[in-house]
Amino acid sequence: MEFRVKHRASDCGARTGEITTAHGTFETPAFMPVGTQGSVKAVSPEDLREIGAQIILSNTYHLYLRPGHNIIRRLGGLHRFMHWSGPILTDSGGFQVYSLAGLRSISEKGVTFQSHVDGSTHFIGPEEAIEIQQSLGGDIMMAFDECVSYPAEREYVANAVRLTTQWARRSLEHKKRGNQAIFGIIQGGMHTDLREQSARDLVALGFDGYALGGLSVGEDRPTRLRVIRDTIGFIPPDRPVYVMGVGAPEDLVEGVRLGVDMFDCVMPTRNARNGTLFTSNGKMIIKNARYAEDPKPVDGRCGCYTCTHYSRAYLRHLFMAREILAYRLNTIHNLAHYCRLMAELRTAVSEDRVEAYAREFYDLQRTGIP
Amino acid sequence: MEFRVKHRASDCGARTGEITTAHGTFETPAFMPVGTQGSVKAVSPEDLREIGAQIILSNTYHLYLRPGHNIIRRLGGLHRFMHWSGPILTDSGGFQVYSLAGLRSISEKGVTFQSHVDGSTHFIGPEEAIEIQQSLGGDIMMAFDECVSYPAEREYVANAVRLTTQWARRSLEHKKRGNQAIFGIIQGGMHTDLREQSARDLVALGFDGYALGGLSVGEDRPTRLRVIRDTIGFIPPDRPVYVMGVGAPEDLVEGVRLGVDMFDCVMPTRNARNGTLFTSNGKMIIKNARYAEDPKPVDGRCGCYTCTHYSRAYLRHLFMAREILAYRLNTIHNLAHYCRLMAELRTAVSEDRVEAYAREFYDLQRTGIP
Repeated sequence: MEFRVKHRASDCGARTGEITTAHGTFETPAFMPVGTQGSVKAVSPEDLREIGAQIILSNTYHLYLRPGHNIIRRLGGLHRFMHWSGPILTDSGGFQVYSLAGLRSISEKGVTFQSHVDGSTHFIGPEEAIEIQQSLGGDIMMAFDECVSYPAEREYVANAVRLTTQWARRSLEHKKRGNQAIFGIIQGGMHTDLREQSARDLVALGFDGYALGGLSVGEDRPTRLRVIRDTIGFIPPDRPVYVMGVGAPEDLVEGVRLGVDMFDCVMPTRNARNGTLFTSNGKMIIKNARYAEDPKPVDGRCGCYTCTHYSRAYLRHLFMAREILAYRLNTIHNLAHYCRLMAELRTAVSEDRVEAYAREFYDLQRTGIP
Repeated sequence: MEFRVKHRASDCGARTGEITTAHGTFETPAFMPVGTQGSVKAVSPEDLREIGAQIILSNTYHLYLRPGHNIIRRLGGLHRFMHWSGPILTDSGGFQVYSLAGLRSISEKGVTFQSHVDGSTHFIGPEEAIEIQQSLGGDIMMAFDECVSYPAEREYVANAVRLTTQWARRSLEHKKRGNQAIFGIIQGGMHTDLREQSARDLVALGFDGYALGGLSVGEDRPTRLRVIRDTIGFIPPDRPVYVMGVGAPEDLVEGVRLGVDMFDCVMPTRNARNGTLFTSNGKMIIKNARYAEDPKPVDGRCGCYTCTHYSRAYLRHLFMAREILAYRLNTIHNLAHYCRLMAELRTAVSEDRVEAYAREFYDLQRTGIP
């Protein structure tokens, strides 16, 4: 994997770049749509390309449980299995073990947990997490980590940082393939000194990139941005910075200003399925009666397939009637909105006008849906 | 509307032709995918075009109840509302009033019924059915009919035939637009003489085409084919024949042999969503464990998007994981299978080898899934 910084903004910490993987190059700052079970929910790979997605994320925990990483390996790997030829990042499974699995017990060795699908008992440690990710064949793997809930006792967080460093070392040691990059995951909760400790530990081990885990777990946005700001300085400037599971459009704008290169979040896809559409002028609840006869597209500034061909009235009808097409059209729009936001941010960075762009962004968000 | 017969098969009653409507031409024999609520479930208009669908059907009853035909009219009609620029046939609402609505009472004037959506009370007679269909703006409208359940008393069926003739006359009289064709619906249950009576009544009124309603209501296939065979002779040979709500691939093959020009059925779309896929070699239940690691496409003879890019193993995974993409990929395949069957039948008719084609069709169906 190669990371090339193209431009550093003069007015903030933002930067543009590109990351070249075994399955092609993506521009940074990048947003990665989430394809939890080997499918970005409700859309096809062709949809994703048309939307402008350049890299997607898939979940190790889910694919391990169903259909099983060995099946995917025998069928030629995840790219072939899901018909996506571009870059894929696979997470470590750490976050899902904590957020989805049933009864779990943590030891130095790893985590024993119960499947959320059928209650069966499983064990994943750093070696297993890498083994699974190597079977999937993603372009960027994540080291296994202990993701701490929030709020948490400082002592618990400190211990998780210690364990995460151990597991990161073992993840690195277990990695066998040259064509798969690996990122370390910085933990430390909302504690500046523990984040620094975790970052220093991982940087000493030497990863291809560094992620901030344990965010978007219930903390407010100022806290989240403070943690990013306080931690990012400990990451070597020639390595990509990835903030995991974040976030809202505002998080993307603020994250980019702080120097974040990669984001992922289920928000655009999940909200789409719940009928909440992101627009330049804020969120649109498509089931609202005010859209029943509205011939306008969701967002007049958006050039996506949905906004090009369908009215708010039709999208409302599909959603009210629970038509499957509703989920696809809404998802296409929300992902296109996110990808357009990232493209605009990249342009703003390259033209040294991120601050002006951010002001416009917030002004538009405040005007409300026309 | 113009119907042009291109070729009559020498070896059976089959014929090829084309029907030109206000929104373009479609080839016959034709299969019409069903877009009940203004969307062919799980696919987009672009998907339909790629699949080879040339005309779709939409349901008057459903669109009247939700979002309401007046909303669709004010938004520019159904074509624009749903972003489908090709021919659309709208049914009369008769069948749905009998099969879906709650408490209903029938009089000479029409039918009072309760909405299956919210229980509210509504009235549709022939004038209302045409009014709604004119608001929707489909290319082919259907006269309002009384669809009889099966089995039914002969006297009840005879009365339904009488009422259907009355309503057909009033439907014709209420029709105002020249760019919308109208078909009459022949009833008469499984009684040859009542079907003849109904056909003679409607032909005397003079419609653009003639449909057989009241089939696929529980009768067996030999009975269904007998009714089609016995009735089709009373329809003028220069008018298209449409068998409503039929059917399975075998029904299409047999219907074409008898001279049927148009079909519609929810079977390919509904089965797709239930995980049943049609193939040259019979039905495939995609959730079966035997497909868990099967790298083959659903049907090696099929060139659809699904069969081109995805394995049985992936489709099984998506279906088991309840991924929304499963419904789209399965629907694309099943509709492509139906459209390919019709295209092959048209070719067979034009080459006077329908009987040979039918033999091959049944031989392949019997071989089982490879």
